Amino acid sequence: MDIGTLTIVGVGLIGGSIGLAAKRRGVARRILGVERHPSCVAYALAKGAIDESSCNLTAAVLRAEVTVFCTPVDEIAQQVLAAASVCPADNLFIDTGSTKALITRTIESAAPTARFVGGHPLAGSEKQGVEHAEADLFENKLTIVTRTASTAPDALEQATRFWQLLGSSVRVMSPEEHDAALAFTSHLPHLLASALAGILPAPLNDLTASGFRDTTRIAAGDPGLWTAIFSHNRAAVLDALAVLSGRLECLRDCLSTSDWATLHDLLLQAKKVRDALGS
Amino acid sequence: MDIGTLTIVGVGLIGGSIGLAAKRRGVARRILGVERHPSCVAYALAKGAIDESSCNLTAAVLRAEVTVFCTPVDEIAQQVLAAASVCPADNLFIDTGSTKALITRTIESAAPTARFVGGHPLAGSEKQGVEHAEADLFENKLTIVTRTASTAPDALEQATRFWQLLGSSVRVMSPEEHDAALAFTSHLPHLLASALAGILPAPLNDLTASGFRDTTRIAAGDPGLWTAIFSHNRAAVLDALAVLSGRLECLRDCLSTSDWATLHDLLLQAKKVRDALGS
Repeated sequence: MDIGTLTIVGVGLIGGSIGLAAKRRGVARRILGVERHPSCVAYALAKGAIDESSCNLTAAVLRAEVTVFCTPVDEIAQQVLAAASVCPADNLFIDTGSTKALITRTIESAAPTARFVGGHPLAGSEKQGVEHAEADLFENKLTIVTRTASTAPDALEQATRFWQLLGSSVRVMSPEEHDAALAFTSHLPHLLASALAGILPAPLNDLTASGFRDTTRIAAGDPGLWTAIFSHNRAAVLDALAVLSGRLECLRDCLSTSDWATLHDLLLQAKKVRDALGS
Repeated sequence: MDIGTLTIVGVGLIGGSIGLAAKRRGVARRILGVERHPSCVAYALAKGAIDESSCNLTAAVLRAEVTVFCTPVDEIAQQVLAAASVCPADNLFIDTGSTKALITRTIESAAPTARFVGGHPLAGSEKQGVEHAEADLFENKLTIVTRTASTAPDALEQATRFWQLLGSSVRVMSPEEHDAALAFTSHLPHLLASALAGILPAPLNDLTASGFRDTTRIAAGDPGLWTAIFSHNRAAVLDALAVLSGRLECLRDCLSTSDWATLHDLLLQAKKVRDALGS
C-alpha cells in the first residue's frame, strides 16, 4: 500500500498517532490534517504528525486517496457523507470511532456505494489531544475492522492492510458484534469507573491509593465524547449493565447473609479472569 | 526511636517492605521475621528484609521491643493477644490490617492494658509476597494510625514515629472512621473490579484494552485475604454499595430515557473528582 496523500480528519490522540505512525512506517507520502483547533494544528505540524493542515473538509478529502476520520462518534457519519458526496468513487474512507453500528448504518443507507470501512483501534486512553500522540500507539494492539453485507471486499482488504501497516493486528467482525463486545470491555467499565469516582465523599480524597486510582482512571475521559458513545450504544450498554447489576446483587447477598464461602468463590472466579488478561 | 529488635509477623509484601525500609533507614538494629512459609523465609533472608527467622510467635515477640503484625485481618487479633499474654507491659504492638474496628475491639476487650496501636499503610497493591517488597514502599504514602479512648498517648506517639521513620506520613483517626472511609476508597472498588472481571464473557478476553485492565486490576487480589476484609467490614461496605447502586441507577435512567444532558453532568462531576486525584 502506497498512499500518495492521506487525510486525517480530527488530529487528536488517535489522529495524531496515525499521522506519526504513517510517517515513520512510510505508509503515506503526504499527510493532510483537518482540524478546527489552531493549537492542535500548530502542535501536530511541529511534531510532524501532519505535513499540512486545512479547515476545509471537502477540499482536503478531494486531495486524498485515503481519508481516516478520528472525530467524535456523533460527527463521523455526517463527515463521511460530506466527503463521499464530492470524492471519486474509489476513495477509501476509514473511521476510528468507539461505536460502529449507528455510524455504519447511517453511512450505508445514505451513500450505499461509498467505500467506507469502519475501524476501532483498541489503543485509546483517558488522555486526549495530539500532545499525547505516539508513533507506536498501535503496535501490538488490536484494531477491530467492521464488515457488513455492503462492504466491498477490496475496500475491506485495503483498510485491513492500512491498520496492519501501522503496526496493529486486525480482527474483522460486524458493527453489531463490535458494539455488543465493547459494551462489556469498554463502555460499561467507563460507566462503573465514573460511578465510583462520582460517589467519593470529598473528605476521603487523600485516603485513596493506587487501587482506587486504577479502578477510576478512565473516569477522567472527556464527558462529551463519552456521552455520544453511550448515546450510540445505548441498548448494548443497558444489557451489559443489567448483567453487572445481577453480579453486584449476588455479591451484596453474600455480604448481607455473611455467606463467605460463596463470596470467596465469586472473588476467585473473577481473579482467574483477571489473571488471564495479564498486567 | 532506636529499636533493638523489631519482630515482623507475616513477611509478605507489607512485612517484607517494612523490614527493607527499617534496615535502609536504620530504624531497628535487628529484624526478626515470623513466617510459616519456608520459601518466604528463604527469600526474605536472601533479600535482607529480615536478619533471622522464627516459627515461634511468642518466642520471637519476647525478644522484641516492637512487633508489627502483617498477617491477614482474620489472624491479627489472636496473634496480638497471644503476644500480649507473654510480653513485658511496655512492648509495642502495631498492625497493618486493611480493617481496624473489629481487630481493635477484640484486642482491647481481651487485653485492655496491651500497648496496641492499629495502623494501615495505604501502599498495597494487587501483588503479594515478599518478592514484591520494596524498601521505598511507604515513601510519600499515607499510613492511617488508629486511636481509641484506651490508646496510651505514648504508644500512639511511638507508633506514629515508627511509620514516619519508614518514610510515610500519618493521619490519626478512630478505627470506625478508618473502616467507613476504606469501604469507599478500597473495599467497594475491589468489589466492583471483581464484579466487572467476573462477568466478562470469555470470548471477549482479547478485546480488552488498557481501560478494562486498569478498572479490574485489583480483582487479581487474593480471594482469601479479601473475603476476610469483607467479613470484617461488612456493614460499611454494604452502606457504600448502597450509595453506588443509587448512582448506577441514575446512570441507567439516563440511558433508558436518553437523558444525555444529565448523563453528561454526571460524567463531568465524576471526571472532576478523578482529575483532582492525579495519575
